[in-house]
Amino acid sequence: MTQESSHVAPRYLTGDKAGLQEFLAKFDVFLFDCDGVLWSGDHLFPGTVETLELLRNNGKQVVFVTNNSTKSRADYRKKLEGLGIPSTVEEIFSSSYSSSIYISRILELPENKRKVYVIGESGIEQELRSENVPFIGGTDPAYRRDVTPADYKKIAAGDESIIDPEVGVVLVGLDFHMNYLKIALAYHYIKRGAVFLATNIDSTLPNSGTLFPGAGSMSAPLIMMLNKEPVALGKPSQAMMDSIEGKFKFDRSRACMVGDRANTDIRFGLEGKLGGTLGVLTGVSSKEDFVSGDVRPHAYLDKLSDLLDSE
Amino acid sequence: MTQESSHVAPRYLTGDKAGLQEFLAKFDVFLFDCDGVLWSGDHLFPGTVETLELLRNNGKQVVFVTNNSTKSRADYRKKLEGLGIPSTVEEIFSSSYSSSIYISRILELPENKRKVYVIGESGIEQELRSENVPFIGGTDPAYRRDVTPADYKKIAAGDESIIDPEVGVVLVGLDFHMNYLKIALAYHYIKRGAVFLATNIDSTLPNSGTLFPGAGSMSAPLIMMLNKEPVALGKPSQAMMDSIEGKFKFDRSRACMVGDRANTDIRFGLEGKLGGTLGVLTGVSSKEDFVSGDVRPHAYLDKLSDLLDSE
Repeated sequence: MTQESSHVAPRYLTGDKAGLQEFLAKFDVFLFDCDGVLWSGDHLFPGTVETLELLRNNGKQVVFVTNNSTKSRADYRKKLEGLGIPSTVEEIFSSSYSSSIYISRILELPENKRKVYVIGESGIEQELRSENVPFIGGTDPAYRRDVTPADYKKIAAGDESIIDPEVGVVLVGLDFHMNYLKIALAYHYIKRGAVFLATNIDSTLPNSGTLFPGAGSMSAPLIMMLNKEPVALGKPSQAMMDSIEGKFKFDRSRACMVGDRANTDIRFGLEGKLGGTLGVLTGVSSKEDFVSGDVRPHAYLDKLSDLLDSE
Repeated sequence: MTQESSHVAPRYLTGDKAGLQEFLAKFDVFLFDCDGVLWSGDHLFPGTVETLELLRNNGKQVVFVTNNSTKSRADYRKKLEGLGIPSTVEEIFSSSYSSSIYISRILELPENKRKVYVIGESGIEQELRSENVPFIGGTDPAYRRDVTPADYKKIAAGDESIIDPEVGVVLVGLDFHMNYLKIALAYHYIKRGAVFLATNIDSTLPNSGTLFPGAGSMSAPLIMMLNKEPVALGKPSQAMMDSIEGKFKFDRSRACMVGDRANTDIRFGLEGKLGGTLGVLTGVSSKEDFVSGDVRPHAYLDKLSDLLDSE
């Protein structure tokens, strides 16, 4: 046995009808991580729709909380809809949204340093636009190219044809078009004083039943070069929990976070002092992680749809 | 004052003619880091050629030791020649060369796992060819593209059209064409059991008087995703010192390492138990790093050509 964690071993609820009923009765609000819990990549897990329906039918508030910054809230609603899951934009919290809120409402930037240099996809851009935050980079094709000898000289000289003097924030999210030039520019903006933000720092992203590079992998070169950690806006950052609470005004003791990752989802719920945390084994963390790891949920299931056995 | 380092404060030799003469007399062999010492990017520092000439005229053996894996030894000789510095391929040790030696002569790979998946430029490819090591990746244009939905499925399934079952080593060096697909493939090869090697782990690369992403920044996403460090073959790894000594059979107590980075060059010399280490202030480390840092050279100069004042 290794060193004991701060709370008792999690309860295994798969197949335990009475235990499931007792657990569900404790909560009015369920916060759901999406990828690895409701689906994996483009594959919807069987029973997801029915499980969400069961919760709604029992008067539970459902909130979808995702660290995937490539999509906006509107993109996510479309994705849910496409999978047959009814939802509204207001039920959805993405790390692209919480990052935009943080920049527009919490960071106090000087008037001439309000532009954001984005490493990421269109989800971030849409949410920045929704908060009227000016930005460069992102999906702009001008940044999807090889570095040239002229770039080194211009970047070193702070030439305004490549270094925008109004950039005061670097926001790093998952970018399927990451490249050397983008990392070099982000590094130089931060060295020149820009605030270093990350939508989230998940090192991996589940897809097709395995793992691929996540948003944290985009920040990793910068963290190594700068010897500095970004302010992260996704789970487990409590900035995201605060913004969810600000919107829903729920009682934290009557809320439960459901997720597949001990170190992000479960930590997010525990540090947010929610009444409950529920792990599922359809994503990143293993049974061993949940039972013997440093961060343990209150309960865990083989899969989310095991909740259907409470009926 | 912070905690004392293991040896005394370094001697500042700029302008100290007697001190310079005394220092030079102690050594028969000078190992030179190149970028940040002899030149920066494509800019040769004034006095570099004359300083090397002075050492050669005084019977000193000169060795060029570089962590830049983008060039082969032959490329480096051409670079030196282009700058007016006479040299031979045998005087040059690059991290691409030490990596190839390590793979071909030290790693004991099973017969069906001898292929190397390369993240890096042509210097690595040339040195792997010189040791008859089979490889894929590198500068192959097939890897310089965006990731596709089909890639996720094929990689997850271990489809042999994209995952070569003979790959037993992943070698990561500086790659100006790094992208999401390359990182994803490297991750999956290592998860399938491939040995994780890095030509070097310098986080930054000096160019045009400032810093850009170095080879360590290419390994950083993998280190974060795998929670595992690569075996690094460049400075300060002693695998490189051993291969230099194997070639030159020099007396370590009569050798001096010259470099601009405390944590790589100077550490390399100190851990290799060389008689001397000499820092220069024309690259990454500052005077404060040399004087008060954890890793201190025996002596330091404003610039390499200050050695000319020994005459």
